[in-house]
Amino acid sequence: MVELGSTSLTIVGVIAGLAVASLVVAAVLRRQVLAAGEGTASMQQIAKAVQEGASAYLNRQFRTLALFAVVVCALLFLLPGDGGVKLGRSLFFLVGAAFSASIGFLGMWLATRANLRVAAAASLPGGRAEGARIAFRTGGVVGMSVVGLGLLGAATVVLIYKGDAPAVLEGFGFGAALLAMFMRVGGGIFTKAADVGADLVGKVEQGIPEDDPRNAATIADNVGDNVGDCAGMAADLFESYAVTLVAALILGRAAFGEQGLVFPLIVTAVGALVAALGVAITRVRGAESGLTAINRGFYVSAVVGVLLAALAAFVYLPSTFAEFTDGTAGLTDHGGDPRLIATAAVAIGVVLAGVILWVTGYFTGTTSKPTLHVAETTRTGAATVVLSGIGVGFESAVYTAGIICAAICGVFLIAGGNVALSLFLIALAGCGLLTTVGVIVAMDTFGPVSDNAQGIAEMSGDVSEEGAQILTDLDAVGNTTKAVTKGIAIATAVLAATALFGSYADAVASKIAEIGNAPADDLVAAMMDYDIISPVTLVGVILGGATVFLFSGLAIDAVTRAAGAIVFEVRRQFRDFPGIMTGEVRPEYGKVVDICTRDSLRELATPGLLAAFAPIAVGFGLGIGPLAGFLAGAIGSGVLMAVFLANSGGAWDNAKKIVEDGRHGGKNSPAHAAAVIGDTVGDPFKDTAGPAINPLIKVMNLVSVLIAPAIVVVSFGEDANTALRLSIAVVAALIAFGAVIASRLRAARVDREGALAHALEEPDVVTAS
Amino acid sequence: MVELGSTSLTIVGVIAGLAVASLVVAAVLRRQVLAAGEGTASMQQIAKAVQEGASAYLNRQFRTLALFAVVVCALLFLLPGDGGVKLGRSLFFLVGAAFSASIGFLGMWLATRANLRVAAAASLPGGRAEGARIAFRTGGVVGMSVVGLGLLGAATVVLIYKGDAPAVLEGFGFGAALLAMFMRVGGGIFTKAADVGADLVGKVEQGIPEDDPRNAATIADNVGDNVGDCAGMAADLFESYAVTLVAALILGRAAFGEQGLVFPLIVTAVGALVAALGVAITRVRGAESGLTAINRGFYVSAVVGVLLAALAAFVYLPSTFAEFTDGTAGLTDHGGDPRLIATAAVAIGVVLAGVILWVTGYFTGTTSKPTLHVAETTRTGAATVVLSGIGVGFESAVYTAGIICAAICGVFLIAGGNVALSLFLIALAGCGLLTTVGVIVAMDTFGPVSDNAQGIAEMSGDVSEEGAQILTDLDAVGNTTKAVTKGIAIATAVLAATALFGSYADAVASKIAEIGNAPADDLVAAMMDYDIISPVTLVGVILGGATVFLFSGLAIDAVTRAAGAIVFEVRRQFRDFPGIMTGEVRPEYGKVVDICTRDSLRELATPGLLAAFAPIAVGFGLGIGPLAGFLAGAIGSGVLMAVFLANSGGAWDNAKKIVEDGRHGGKNSPAHAAAVIGDTVGDPFKDTAGPAINPLIKVMNLVSVLIAPAIVVVSFGEDANTALRLSIAVVAALIAFGAVIASRLRAARVDREGALAHALEEPDVVTAS
Repeated sequence: MVELGSTSLTIVGVIAGLAVASLVVAAVLRRQVLAAGEGTASMQQIAKAVQEGASAYLNRQFRTLALFAVVVCALLFLLPGDGGVKLGRSLFFLVGAAFSASIGFLGMWLATRANLRVAAAASLPGGRAEGARIAFRTGGVVGMSVVGLGLLGAATVVLIYKGDAPAVLEGFGFGAALLAMFMRVGGGIFTKAADVGADLVGKVEQGIPEDDPRNAATIADNVGDNVGDCAGMAADLFESYAVTLVAALILGRAAFGEQGLVFPLIVTAVGALVAALGVAITRVRGAESGLTAINRGFYVSAVVGVLLAALAAFVYLPSTFAEFTDGTAGLTDHGGDPRLIATAAVAIGVVLAGVILWVTGYFTGTTSKPTLHVAETTRTGAATVVLSGIGVGFESAVYTAGIICAAICGVFLIAGGNVALSLFLIALAGCGLLTTVGVIVAMDTFGPVSDNAQGIAEMSGDVSEEGAQILTDLDAVGNTTKAVTKGIAIATAVLAATALFGSYADAVASKIAEIGNAPADDLVAAMMDYDIISPVTLVGVILGGATVFLFSGLAIDAVTRAAGAIVFEVRRQFRDFPGIMTGEVRPEYGKVVDICTRDSLRELATPGLLAAFAPIAVGFGLGIGPLAGFLAGAIGSGVLMAVFLANSGGAWDNAKKIVEDGRHGGKNSPAHAAAVIGDTVGDPFKDTAGPAINPLIKVMNLVSVLIAPAIVVVSFGEDANTALRLSIAVVAALIAFGAVIASRLRAARVDREGALAHALEEPDVVTAS
Repeated sequence: MVELGSTSLTIVGVIAGLAVASLVVAAVLRRQVLAAGEGTASMQQIAKAVQEGASAYLNRQFRTLALFAVVVCALLFLLPGDGGVKLGRSLFFLVGAAFSASIGFLGMWLATRANLRVAAAASLPGGRAEGARIAFRTGGVVGMSVVGLGLLGAATVVLIYKGDAPAVLEGFGFGAALLAMFMRVGGGIFTKAADVGADLVGKVEQGIPEDDPRNAATIADNVGDNVGDCAGMAADLFESYAVTLVAALILGRAAFGEQGLVFPLIVTAVGALVAALGVAITRVRGAESGLTAINRGFYVSAVVGVLLAALAAFVYLPSTFAEFTDGTAGLTDHGGDPRLIATAAVAIGVVLAGVILWVTGYFTGTTSKPTLHVAETTRTGAATVVLSGIGVGFESAVYTAGIICAAICGVFLIAGGNVALSLFLIALAGCGLLTTVGVIVAMDTFGPVSDNAQGIAEMSGDVSEEGAQILTDLDAVGNTTKAVTKGIAIATAVLAATALFGSYADAVASKIAEIGNAPADDLVAAMMDYDIISPVTLVGVILGGATVFLFSGLAIDAVTRAAGAIVFEVRRQFRDFPGIMTGEVRPEYGKVVDICTRDSLRELATPGLLAAFAPIAVGFGLGIGPLAGFLAGAIGSGVLMAVFLANSGGAWDNAKKIVEDGRHGGKNSPAHAAAVIGDTVGDPFKDTAGPAINPLIKVMNLVSVLIAPAIVVVSFGEDANTALRLSIAVVAALIAFGAVIASRLRAARVDREGALAHALEEPDVVTAS
């Protein structure tokens, strides 16, 4: 086992201490949130229903996923590698998954308690500032926990495994990413199925307002906000944090040995300090909007983050590349100053976060041209609303992708074109971007908490008109912050995935060196070739993009299907219990929650299996080069698709708000009907498919890094076994493809059942056909 | 100048003769079409208005593009290269562009005459068979002209330039692709702006049927079918044909010298014979549907094509790789039989065409599950229709892309993993796929001709009810054949683009060998590296995908904007001349045609400039490797986006037909309203953005092949000039980006004008906001 020097161990120990301190801060903030008033009995009753539904869903989800995690853990152990490290990797896979799940559960648990307190606070004098404070503190708890657990996990691995930490960290990151992906997909399906289903029957068919207690799907809708937007988002950001840090540690270790392994931990520890600062300084002053306060918090954190990172670089790093203790990646004659170069990379990451914040605001804000344009098209009907929103989404995706590309090119220039150095610096830029994650998580939690608070206020009827307006304002701020977080998350995905290419190539190269054999024939040589002009590499690029398209399509279809089931259930309740409409009978909220739970757990398997097994099929079937192409295609299509889905959804949502604020005819005008259709199309775009692409990219990347040595072993050299290689590819393809087929068959059955239900309800129409 | 043997020259001469013969067949068929009866005076009057509008548009478009072509021709001459070959390349660029334009014009010219004759024939006894015969013959004229001109151009270049033909062929292919792209974009904007605009005011606001003569946009709508679906599609297929042939000739020459240059011409000549056969045998027997006849024609052509290609291979090619006259790409010890290998590649291409035919039919046909599912979702409103159509589009894109990937992998296996051989074979598979192009063009022309015939029948009121039903049936067949053609066209784009990677790498390698210098530093070395795991190559992949997204977004936005202008004009006419509604006053059809012409010519510049200049900016700015990544990203995202747009549009269109045939409530039900919204969203998807991606990919590929040597020259060696290199990149980026910005500003102005127009029409609403 490679040893670390005592200075490094001391530093890592201090960092682990800082991580624990972050968790203590989170605990203190949590107590502050829970200390706030809980409002009337009626409000508490509603909140309790939401809490129970959300807990029930997450518990069932965790039971399902625990089985899956154990299987993956066993499979990990089958891969080639040193016994002790392999055991560590499997173990820390479980730790990563458990941390991801805990963060998600914490986010949900606290949000379902904070929403009630925000709603209660809004009715009191000084409600605006107090409501915003509680909502933002709730985010602070999650933010500090993300930072604390991520840093604690990584530091622990480094303390235990020292120089062998990278292989174990792969397991940790993979566990975090895999669980986050499932939580994003499952939660996303739940929340949007409930939302779309509730709107289709409530708003469209019965003409009752959103969150009306007579709608059987309202509680499910509010549960969804918590399991999707809170739990899913928190797990996703934890995963972004963990994987980016892991990538930096792996590459730093490979390029610069001990110092390369420790420095990213230092930068991330700076992030923990900055997060605490951000949470402390962000408070609403007087009548200013919540967004102003959040922006201020973000920019102050960003500047302080860069300054502290620069300080750390100048204290810890040597002034020339020749002075590194070990492993300088052939950079001994590099003329640059490592301290300046590292600081510049971190700064690029921070600036990238700021620019994405601005661009996303531009494309989805209620006062910006693109959203006003979408609102303008509501006058010519739903079709033009859909088309203009898609146009805005495509365009914003291009600019966001371009900005991320510019950041990568900037880092590449700083590295003087050295690939190994630039990959490490890209990971470092990712760490820089994530120094602001504390504030970002806090910002993002703002959205669902205030959205839910509004729901509780509406359902209970116990909140004053002034209080309701405060909650509406808070909710609008939440819409924009949610879109921003998605942009930041996808940027970290691109940076982490790009950097992980380095560990992929390292894993392959070291295994080839170990085998000591060259590929025997043209076909195997082509399998090993990273050359982009090889036809099979290009096939990899196309298949990578195709996986992103299929994944998105499956997620969107799952929402459409599950929403259909909810529509039928809510209609049934209205029909069977006429008292619901008059307010005499309470709808069976639990039934709708059950349907959402059942359907989203069933539906999350298909995209999940696709993500985990597609890289295995491509890698073993076509080879190392095509698998690299596959990842590149997935990253390229993934970033564009993720931003497209998030921003077109955001623009539709806010275009609807513009119309509801009285433009183009206001509420209940034809323009409003068109805007509602746009918003409904955008729901699964922005909250199901779009955000799930971020963990998808990382899961596929980490699976590839993990299986790369195995592909090399079965492809050539002494243990080459073409039959085994192709068998693995075929089995993986069958699992991935089988899941898709199973989902199709289920869809066909739902269509048939739907037709049957329609036939019972509307015999005249069916007879006519 | 490299010489060709006399046998080869004789063969090429015979092929040129065959090309001329194809054109003679086209002329004979044309005379047959024109000999049919022209119907009543009222029908002729309408047809004349359509003819005049279409001619006026194409003439103005050609005048605009001629200037552009001359500029590009001059720029081509500035690139490094041998004087004589450079002159030939510039000249044949103009020839390629002129051929593309002529085919487009011919397609439009004949279609605007055939539609009248189909409408007239439908009213007569035996109308079904006769109508189908005229429509299919019209397609036959275009199909034979495509084959004849493509083969003639390529054979002439080979006869004149012999061994130097490849460089000149690049110019020919580029001219064809560039002009086709502009015609696809311009025609696509025209046709869908008119269609959407006509529907929004006519069907939605005034409740009058499609093609009602009281709608001022009807003539423009019919003109659009001819300039978009006929002229644009014909030019596009000519370009597919020319570029695939060019790619095969370039790679064949590089890999196998003389025989490699001549064999693809032979395969394509086989295609000419097959096309004539296909046109001759495709006729409707008795009461069978038009689709049955077309499928029979396709499958017979496919089988005969493979058999003839096999015969040609066994007669012309040697039995071992060692026997090739010159240049065997290091394959002298390859154990395979070139005759079998070549036949297998052609067969894979033909099978690919058949499979795409089947898959597209499955996803968009009126009786298949996916379309029925989309129709089913009309019951829950427009939002679910849009979502389910997007789901179908994503899924079908994945399968189509997967099938194309399987074909490429198959060819790669046959080539035993040898990259040079496999690239040539991929091009050969493309030629195989295109042996069926005659039948495909004929199939595709079917759609707009019968659509227009229906329009003329409706407007004139001179066609019997039975005749109208025949025209409706023919139109439905046209919908499916149109979707199939798009699938085939995008498959040729992938094959041709993949193969062109070979000529790109060749061009770079030979220029580097000529310079004889290695890159001096890391940064330049990284610029030259094709390694996909380099961060800048990955940036290239992302930017390539981004260009496809931006191009699609711009095309869709252009339609939305132009349609808005038409809505205002049609509304104005209804308001200013109340007599229009009562049928007393004739609307000013010409004004709407003028607006369409003006707007589509203005809007086509932005995507066109983006396509031509983005590769220049990436190539000179980031280097050879990133440019290769850019192309790979564009191919990967391009094929997925093209099929997604085409098939979701097709599914919505046919879902609407299903509802109109009486399901889910039939015409004028809420389900129908939802279906119409889906169809309108699909219009610019399937007829503007989607089909334009095919020439886009080829234009970007050919631009890259053409500029590759220049990038090498300015990057390193004696003439290296970083300032010049970066200046070119910046200027190119400014042109591409400037065009996008200009389009944004125009959009903002349109929004303001729109708001103004609204303000004049609906003062109450605006005051309220």
